[in-house]
Amino acid sequence: MRLSKLVGERLKDIPSDAKMKNHILLLRAGYMKQVANGIYSLTALGQKACLNIENIIRDEMNSCEGQEVKFPVVMPKELWDLSGRYSSIGSEMVRFVDRTNRPMLLGMTHEEAAVHLAKNWVNSYTQLPCMIYQIQTKFRDEPRSRGGLIRVREFTMKDAYSFHITQDDLEDYYDVMFKAYERIYKKIGLKNVISVKSDNGMFGGNASHEFMYLNPMGEDELVICPHCSYRSNQEVAESKIYEKKIEEMLPLEEIYTAQAKDIAEVSKFLKIDSKDCVKAVVFAIKGETGSVVCFIRGDREVNETKLRKLCKKEVVPYDATNDSEFCAGNIGPLNLKAKNTQIYFDLSLKDRNNLVTGANRAEYHLVNFNIERDYGNVEYVDISKVKSGDLCPICGKELEISNGIEIGNIFQLGTKYSKSMGMFVKTKDGEEINPIMGCYGIGVGRNLACVVEENSDENGICMPLSIAPYKVHIVPLRLDDDNVSSVSSKLYHDLQLQKIEVLIDDREVMAGVKFADADLMGMPIRVLISPRSLKNNEMEIKLRKTGETIMVSTNNALSKILEIMDTNKNI
Amino acid sequence: MRLSKLVGERLKDIPSDAKMKNHILLLRAGYMKQVANGIYSLTALGQKACLNIENIIRDEMNSCEGQEVKFPVVMPKELWDLSGRYSSIGSEMVRFVDRTNRPMLLGMTHEEAAVHLAKNWVNSYTQLPCMIYQIQTKFRDEPRSRGGLIRVREFTMKDAYSFHITQDDLEDYYDVMFKAYERIYKKIGLKNVISVKSDNGMFGGNASHEFMYLNPMGEDELVICPHCSYRSNQEVAESKIYEKKIEEMLPLEEIYTAQAKDIAEVSKFLKIDSKDCVKAVVFAIKGETGSVVCFIRGDREVNETKLRKLCKKEVVPYDATNDSEFCAGNIGPLNLKAKNTQIYFDLSLKDRNNLVTGANRAEYHLVNFNIERDYGNVEYVDISKVKSGDLCPICGKELEISNGIEIGNIFQLGTKYSKSMGMFVKTKDGEEINPIMGCYGIGVGRNLACVVEENSDENGICMPLSIAPYKVHIVPLRLDDDNVSSVSSKLYHDLQLQKIEVLIDDREVMAGVKFADADLMGMPIRVLISPRSLKNNEMEIKLRKTGETIMVSTNNALSKILEIMDTNKNI
Repeated sequence: MRLSKLVGERLKDIPSDAKMKNHILLLRAGYMKQVANGIYSLTALGQKACLNIENIIRDEMNSCEGQEVKFPVVMPKELWDLSGRYSSIGSEMVRFVDRTNRPMLLGMTHEEAAVHLAKNWVNSYTQLPCMIYQIQTKFRDEPRSRGGLIRVREFTMKDAYSFHITQDDLEDYYDVMFKAYERIYKKIGLKNVISVKSDNGMFGGNASHEFMYLNPMGEDELVICPHCSYRSNQEVAESKIYEKKIEEMLPLEEIYTAQAKDIAEVSKFLKIDSKDCVKAVVFAIKGETGSVVCFIRGDREVNETKLRKLCKKEVVPYDATNDSEFCAGNIGPLNLKAKNTQIYFDLSLKDRNNLVTGANRAEYHLVNFNIERDYGNVEYVDISKVKSGDLCPICGKELEISNGIEIGNIFQLGTKYSKSMGMFVKTKDGEEINPIMGCYGIGVGRNLACVVEENSDENGICMPLSIAPYKVHIVPLRLDDDNVSSVSSKLYHDLQLQKIEVLIDDREVMAGVKFADADLMGMPIRVLISPRSLKNNEMEIKLRKTGETIMVSTNNALSKILEIMDTNKNI
Repeated sequence: MRLSKLVGERLKDIPSDAKMKNHILLLRAGYMKQVANGIYSLTALGQKACLNIENIIRDEMNSCEGQEVKFPVVMPKELWDLSGRYSSIGSEMVRFVDRTNRPMLLGMTHEEAAVHLAKNWVNSYTQLPCMIYQIQTKFRDEPRSRGGLIRVREFTMKDAYSFHITQDDLEDYYDVMFKAYERIYKKIGLKNVISVKSDNGMFGGNASHEFMYLNPMGEDELVICPHCSYRSNQEVAESKIYEKKIEEMLPLEEIYTAQAKDIAEVSKFLKIDSKDCVKAVVFAIKGETGSVVCFIRGDREVNETKLRKLCKKEVVPYDATNDSEFCAGNIGPLNLKAKNTQIYFDLSLKDRNNLVTGANRAEYHLVNFNIERDYGNVEYVDISKVKSGDLCPICGKELEISNGIEIGNIFQLGTKYSKSMGMFVKTKDGEEINPIMGCYGIGVGRNLACVVEENSDENGICMPLSIAPYKVHIVPLRLDDDNVSSVSSKLYHDLQLQKIEVLIDDREVMAGVKFADADLMGMPIRVLISPRSLKNNEMEIKLRKTGETIMVSTNNALSKILEIMDTNKNI
């Protein structure tokens, strides 16, 4: 490819709304252009890098006996009614009616389509296990797109679906896919990847893991034990937070606390540890009247995902301004007058005496509150977020919290879809059962974004050889010099004959511009051809990532490049 | 791939609604499954064949210096407002609002997105010509899906857009793309392809060609001169239909014609040639009041595309039941009382005397009507469909009419989009101009469908080697025979090591079922391994298309297959 014709411009300025490295660099280096909020066009640079990632994923899926298929982007409502997800998924799913007024939707995932394809055709144990996958554009109407290609509304994704007779067989295959994912990240050039236990979210089912690229800008909070193998998404993380504080119970007392409302103010006002306060956190239930009140130790936060699972409702933070049932800032368990309210006590409050709670009366709190004595017996539940320093549920040592970007997920779905959609397979014993399913997703653009997060420096992107849109970037200086021009052209054509993707900077611009653009775009192997080096019949090969330079004779340039590509894959 | 695990079933019965060969065979052989009207899932067989077609297209586009990019499927209304197409395209375009109530659409073509990507970045003659293309899913809400993958609502398409400084440069590139398209059809195995002049439709612009796969079930009517190079879509076809019939003018007379209303009835009633009748064809204008009345020689039909271009309105057949302005069956030019009506006279009526027309009075016609004498001077226009036997506008010999399926199109767009979207490039002389554009489309699934139309027999599909999902289909008979089992497995693995896509029928079913399925699915090279042939240390290679069989020794099988694939590409 001649750089003069490449659609895409190198920009000097940092785009104003871009905060993350991948966002800034992919825009500045001309890999993409924004079309609308969370919607991008990819230039040849962006698309070729994505196609390289897709092919790495494809090879790995095929090596797991995957069958590449293609499901529709647009699907009819009826198909999604079978699983119940047409109504259970919110406004992130695009819905429209077609010209005959039939309700349709844009697929954000394809469990229903996978079962539709396999159903009736796959009906015997002899056909299992089998896995089908696709690589396709999806649209998810995200409320907040951010971080360049990290969180967008339209994206290309590989989604795979496997079918099994037994849970054991699913688990065996789950391991196979787990390892394939690890190989994919390694091949595309991502090192800081860990896998964590995760919530199954809208997919339903049993065990699941997310692959997380560790990054301080990541939206996911991860709970990691540096001492053992425990790794979990905060959403489902557990910890040992059960700290007893059993003292002699003192008499319950209502005291004036003035304007002290939140835990920090109250503990300061009363000169006590926040651990001795009972925090009240109120949630509304989406689409229903009534509320959920959570009592938790003053130093801890409620984990909404855990709460949702517990009460099986879509809870959202309560908007206190709309209602006067609660005495905001002074809510407590005793004499709580709100109607139609579910109440939960977090495990962190168990076996702790003489606590401070709201008195359900403006400007007053209760001190020396003892749950069992003053309120009655309660069932403590785990609705707490894990904090750094909490103790690991496995080894009991201190946990750490990191941030991560989800770059893949694997789910054990169970029979949620095969059952609701009436898919049956006959076992060896002639029994008709719903097959057990797994699903496995990985986003192409988000992985490209993370590769750029990990592989860049102050001058631009350092594309890993495996996914670089062009492997070699020829920079001829002084194209008006016949020798430079003919040697550059020859190398360009020789590389093309070897089927190596090559870019040549055929622009008549200053050397400094060429160098800066080459660094910004980040092809792994740069070849500099100048009148000076040609005096010695040489050219300079420079590796983008390490900065290493190698002088080679013009005759040996091609073979040297091939050798570098062959032996030094991790450049 | 082991056939036992392949998702997709071979069906014996012809699906009830399937009429075309590709529809029947792609369903019966398990290449696809219908999800909704005009929406299919592709199995591994279908998707692999499509990917092979995509790669052939990709190679050809790259050989034309094309840059593969990716535009969004979902685009904002504002982008399409710039070209005016958001409002000019009808209900075939899917529109919806996103979660913030912004109007969005699903792209059916990407001229706007192409200009958006190139704009500002491509701004100098030094960057031109350049071409960007994508291969992507599109959705078009077709009123009538039909013919399997021939006309669907969701489809994968390659669409390319080129930018040029001069019309000459566009025309040169247009020729390059024309030849690339011819190579694509040849490579994927389509022979009966011709190119015809075509209407530019909703794309706007100047010259355009469609590539047509000749097929009696095709929806497009093609006008072909077997004597010279004239080939045109009926929509824009011309012919020499100007037949004089100049006689002495007889007195105009109104006569009773009873219930004779259409041309057949009137010419029978009056015992005259239909060529002596004036046919009236009435159209309504979409979204407007008023109508268009066309007068044309009795033996001819109005070409709506030509009429639309002429009156620059979206004409649709007039629904006579809704209105009483016209005296249906007796409409004529004289004393036509309808208000707000545009009237056109087709060239076929020129220099013809003593005609019969409606009298605009129920049960009466006028005879001996002479346009200039009785009505006045008119400007004759060409709004006639070409008929078989009409004379070629180039060589004057008789034209033929054929049917075809559009499998590709190339358009010279002019500056419609670059101008409306404000894209400018600087010429060598420093002038700022709107670049001249071309666009080039080809549908992947429709081409697969046509390949099946052309390459099949009574037993099933004969997949061309170039696009076959699997190149080799191993059919072991008696898998319980250790020798059969081990020889088959070895060949299967040896072929995989050679990166050759291979299918093995590992099912324990009757030989007849295996043969029938192999014929139906249509992989080009079948290898039969049976206890009988192994007695002589041999296996049988059979070419699906020709039926040719070759016995080879087990030791030579692999090299023979490689030789067949290498030397005999057109199998």
